[in-house]
Amino acid sequence: MRIDIITCLPKLLDSFFGYSILQRAQQAGHAEVLVHDLRDYTADKHRRVDDYPFGGGAGMVMQIEPIANCIRKLQAERTYDDVIYMTPDGERLAQPLVNRLSLAQNLIILCGHYKGVDERVREQFITREISIGDYVLSGGELAAAVLSDALIRLIPGVLGDETSALTDSFQDGLLAPPIYTRPANFEGWTIPDVLLSGHEAKIDDWRHEQALARTRARRPDLLGE
Amino acid sequence: MRIDIITCLPKLLDSFFGYSILQRAQQAGHAEVLVHDLRDYTADKHRRVDDYPFGGGAGMVMQIEPIANCIRKLQAERTYDDVIYMTPDGERLAQPLVNRLSLAQNLIILCGHYKGVDERVREQFITREISIGDYVLSGGELAAAVLSDALIRLIPGVLGDETSALTDSFQDGLLAPPIYTRPANFEGWTIPDVLLSGHEAKIDDWRHEQALARTRARRPDLLGE
Repeated sequence: MRIDIITCLPKLLDSFFGYSILQRAQQAGHAEVLVHDLRDYTADKHRRVDDYPFGGGAGMVMQIEPIANCIRKLQAERTYDDVIYMTPDGERLAQPLVNRLSLAQNLIILCGHYKGVDERVREQFITREISIGDYVLSGGELAAAVLSDALIRLIPGVLGDETSALTDSFQDGLLAPPIYTRPANFEGWTIPDVLLSGHEAKIDDWRHEQALARTRARRPDLLGE
Repeated sequence: MRIDIITCLPKLLDSFFGYSILQRAQQAGHAEVLVHDLRDYTADKHRRVDDYPFGGGAGMVMQIEPIANCIRKLQAERTYDDVIYMTPDGERLAQPLVNRLSLAQNLIILCGHYKGVDERVREQFITREISIGDYVLSGGELAAAVLSDALIRLIPGVLGDETSALTDSFQDGLLAPPIYTRPANFEGWTIPDVLLSGHEAKIDDWRHEQALARTRARRPDLLGE
């Protein structure tokens, strides 16, 4: 998978893609993330990519021209499955959408900043608008990093143990059960006996019961209840 | 506001807090974000902070001991409003919760990684569990950055124009209306005439209608419809 991220603040994303699974995924050739500085695509001599909103009001708006230049250059080089805009009024990201998008070959992700992008960008270039949740951030960069991380970890071979993602919350419609590691007794706080029993079927049953109980208590909506 | 982030991958967060409004907020004294490396709090000679799960299964679990050491050290120094754990089965983050939490003085945010933390950490130390959305990430670091960004931008004085956050999506229960900036005509794609009318009341009416129409089309749940 190749992800092209378009932003006016590329440095904000430096440390994400330089560490953790995203770096390993890139080194192993599973994924390629390229961050494009929108300021490289403007004809403005001060390299400005934003301007005041028509009709007045607070905040700055990202201009269409540099964004159009950047997207067209990328699209001339290869075909993209989607041109995604991260925005709080987009489709809400959830695991089923992540699963579907993880099959894409090439994605462009445009990060809004300030008050957002000129509406004509959304009408003319964007094929999919995604929100990571019902809250407002100072820019789309973090949202783009969240989406990239969620996608890349699903690519086969990226996680050390391939079964690992299958036991995540949401993948089977249930929240994950409690987990414990050494020591079995920490200052008097102990772990459930069944986990020390060595009885695999009992442990599986216990985990399923716990996952069900936790889902019922915290997220009954996932059970359709 | 002071935010202490506890993580086993501190470098992942470097570029977020070094750029954008988060850096400016810190320089102006509005906010202080401190990132703590969990490996500094373990007695293990290899500085390991995770171990295999009791009862078997895929993935590693973050141990209670270094987390307990770090949280206790911080709590001995000052009082915290909340000790937050970022986890996909936590309370879903939404703007009203962000607004409430933005009034806090001191917050600890613990980032899970691998399969998550030993359940006893959640039982004994965590006062609030938050999820940024129904999807799984490779770790809690991005989620902690999202929460910190959402909080810090609300602190008075952080955004350049104080009215700016009030016109965001969600703050008035509506999605934001379309916005436009120069040029008014880009390759034949024009902007709505009303925005060039100079008639403030008409522009306000148009924006409200657009916000309502967009909310009805995309997020009728926000209107209770």
